[in-house]
Amino acid sequence: QINADRMMKTLHDTCEWGAAHRYGSGPFETGMARLTLDENDATVRRWLTGEAKKLGCSVTVDQMGNTFMIREGKHSGPPTAMGSHLDTQPTGGRYDGILGIMAGLEALRTMNDHNVQTEYPVALINWTNEEGARYPQSIVGSGVWCGDVQLEKAWALQDVKDSSLTMKSELSKIGFLGETKCSHTATPLAAHFELHIEQGPILEATGKKVGIVQGGQAYKWFDINVKGRECHTGSTPFDTRSDAMLCAARIIVESNKIAKEHKGLASTGILRLSPGSVNTCPGHVFFTLDVRHPSTDALAALCSEIEAAARRIAAEDSEKGCGLDWLETFHSPAITFHPDCIASVRKAAEANYGAEQGIDIYSGAGHDTCSTSKVCPSSMIFITSKDGISHNPREYSSPEDCAIGAQVLMDAALSYDSQ
Amino acid sequence: QINADRMMKTLHDTCEWGAAHRYGSGPFETGMARLTLDENDATVRRWLTGEAKKLGCSVTVDQMGNTFMIREGKHSGPPTAMGSHLDTQPTGGRYDGILGIMAGLEALRTMNDHNVQTEYPVALINWTNEEGARYPQSIVGSGVWCGDVQLEKAWALQDVKDSSLTMKSELSKIGFLGETKCSHTATPLAAHFELHIEQGPILEATGKKVGIVQGGQAYKWFDINVKGRECHTGSTPFDTRSDAMLCAARIIVESNKIAKEHKGLASTGILRLSPGSVNTCPGHVFFTLDVRHPSTDALAALCSEIEAAARRIAAEDSEKGCGLDWLETFHSPAITFHPDCIASVRKAAEANYGAEQGIDIYSGAGHDTCSTSKVCPSSMIFITSKDGISHNPREYSSPEDCAIGAQVLMDAALSYDSQ
Ligand SMILES: NC(=O)NCCC(=O)O
Ligand SMILES: NC(=O)NCCC(=O)O
Repeated sequence: QINADRMMKTLHDTCEWGAAHRYGSGPFETGMARLTLDENDATVRRWLTGEAKKLGCSVTVDQMGNTFMIREGKHSGPPTAMGSHLDTQPTGGRYDGILGIMAGLEALRTMNDHNVQTEYPVALINWTNEEGARYPQSIVGSGVWCGDVQLEKAWALQDVKDSSLTMKSELSKIGFLGETKCSHTATPLAAHFELHIEQGPILEATGKKVGIVQGGQAYKWFDINVKGRECHTGSTPFDTRSDAMLCAARIIVESNKIAKEHKGLASTGILRLSPGSVNTCPGHVFFTLDVRHPSTDALAALCSEIEAAARRIAAEDSEKGCGLDWLETFHSPAITFHPDCIASVRKAAEANYGAEQGIDIYSGAGHDTCSTSKVCPSSMIFITSKDGISHNPREYSSPEDCAIGAQVLMDAALSYDSQ
Repeated sequence: QINADRMMKTLHDTCEWGAAHRYGSGPFETGMARLTLDENDATVRRWLTGEAKKLGCSVTVDQMGNTFMIREGKHSGPPTAMGSHLDTQPTGGRYDGILGIMAGLEALRTMNDHNVQTEYPVALINWTNEEGARYPQSIVGSGVWCGDVQLEKAWALQDVKDSSLTMKSELSKIGFLGETKCSHTATPLAAHFELHIEQGPILEATGKKVGIVQGGQAYKWFDINVKGRECHTGSTPFDTRSDAMLCAARIIVESNKIAKEHKGLASTGILRLSPGSVNTCPGHVFFTLDVRHPSTDALAALCSEIEAAARRIAAEDSEKGCGLDWLETFHSPAITFHPDCIASVRKAAEANYGAEQGIDIYSGAGHDTCSTSKVCPSSMIFITSKDGISHNPREYSSPEDCAIGAQVLMDAALSYDSQ
């Protein structure tokens, strides 16, 4: 049995590094702003590798800063891994990613406490830049590892606020630019399990305690540049304008409408304009679009329809017309997790909490396990998110639910290892 | 007769201070980015006061940095002024404001060349922060002077990019925080004339050379804050969101539609959101709205309708709803210029170029003359803007048109003085 109090204390203690956005007076009533490779991320990474070493684990840092903490088993061979991420959104919470790492660490501690000897090694993995917030590409450390993303492209990603700070420069700055090749061939895994908060409403609505995750929906990210012409807001008749802001606003409204029709999602999280003067119509607007759908093919159709609408708006519904650059920056297809891993999770959930507490569920968000599942058997466990809130300081899961998830994580990994 | 070559040489020479956004290889094929009270504005201000002193003018700088350069007349008394501004938009041109100052300076130089003795003093005035770009309130130096705006409020205006830099701190930094009270009682004027580029399409379309400006349209500026709730773009169903960016986009699109129906204008020049992450729906969006209409009453009706639509969008058409703060930051009513000044301009235009070259016209933009006209007889002269382009580096008026405007400006002022 895992030690739930120890796990929650460790989680909240280490959330001191990056705590932000206080919303109540309680000691844990803050969210987090621990952006990938920032000072707080560096501190919690150093702390984590120290803890793993105390437990007797070997520590390998790869070229993307992905950190593999490996506890020996009876036989040598690829480890069964428990992985997640320590980075957060700028307005993130205390559970997204962090819980998965803390639960994996607690599993290692529990194994040590009880002198558990696994058949093969088990690993705890902290993946770099899962969020895609500071460096705008999600699940990128695991993406390079599984061969989806080129190392050089990932290294070249630029801080969303300061383009001089690349992932490579910041990995190097904090001492996490490892020498080990970032690849599933260099650091192979037998399997990958991840505990995560649901970030959605289903577990809460159904009253179930364990989400047995079957896979995740597809998503694409786009960088969009609208090029208009600066003009005077007071003396330029509408019909002679090329107003990049108005054009962008129309595209955002339309993308929402089309996504609804397709039962998908479309969202704009970043928008920047220039020159930025009350009485000058913007000549340039940059914005992002995040589009999702449970089906890879339906996502492609949805994205095509949004792009066509955007091109029509720019050409025909923006007075004198605006130019439009449309760049796909990221694609994660719909993922189906591995039946063996799903079976291990189901077994662990049933053994501990009974079959009626489990529910098969799909992930709306992307996860590092979507990357790992491309090259090794993988699956996930979800626990309840209060009000389905995530990427928000008020993200919350009860200590009881966190403990349930950690128990299922450890037992699923042990069960997989012993097969 | 003014010396057109000297004037244009002076204009382009001094546009070295703040030249930006090169668009062609010619020596003058750049726009300007000379933001109020920045280093380039400081340099050109120092140069201008030096030139005025060389011409024997007295120089008075008031608490807003408005600079009054006064040439003595036969009798003492309030001067007849020629004024405009040396600051530009971040993507501004070489003519907006700058031409008015250069023409006024050329008028003083010409009077000296010909030993003209006026009845009363004549003045050249450089008004501070006409543009409202860096400090987002237009015609503010002249606004304080005429009693429309409180000095403390104007001093407290914050740099749009760095709130620690107030108008007062930057006036002080560049040495233009004068001791003279900023008021039409401390520095009274007999009249105020301003030459300006039209910034619109009418002169070009009609082929007329001199716009005899009758007044200007009304405008209001608003700061709008949309308060939503950060959420995950991938796991948050649309119907549970409070997406501040989607709400702002809807308001921008709707404001444009309503303004069109009212035959007015509405434009968004600044938009900032937070937290700014691809996969987090923004919890907060700030944007500006600039609304214009030829009639003060119709403007009020238009603004009310836009505000009501925005409140409905925030409350009812933003899923779980967004909060909305709606703040009017600026209001300039429709202005009718003084018949005596209009008559002086008409007389000067007809005497030089014939009645058929003049056309009565209204200003779409705000001008310092809108402020002065509240406390002293005032009017303006417009010359042709190529393609009606302004607040854009490609703003252009031919040297011939600039010369025509400068001649009419000087002669209108002399005619007014001699009445
Ligand atoms: N779980 C999670 O928040 N992942 C971030 C990647 C994404 O889905 O956008
Ligand atoms: N003339 C001019 O560009 N004035 C700026 C003030 C405004 O109209 O917004």
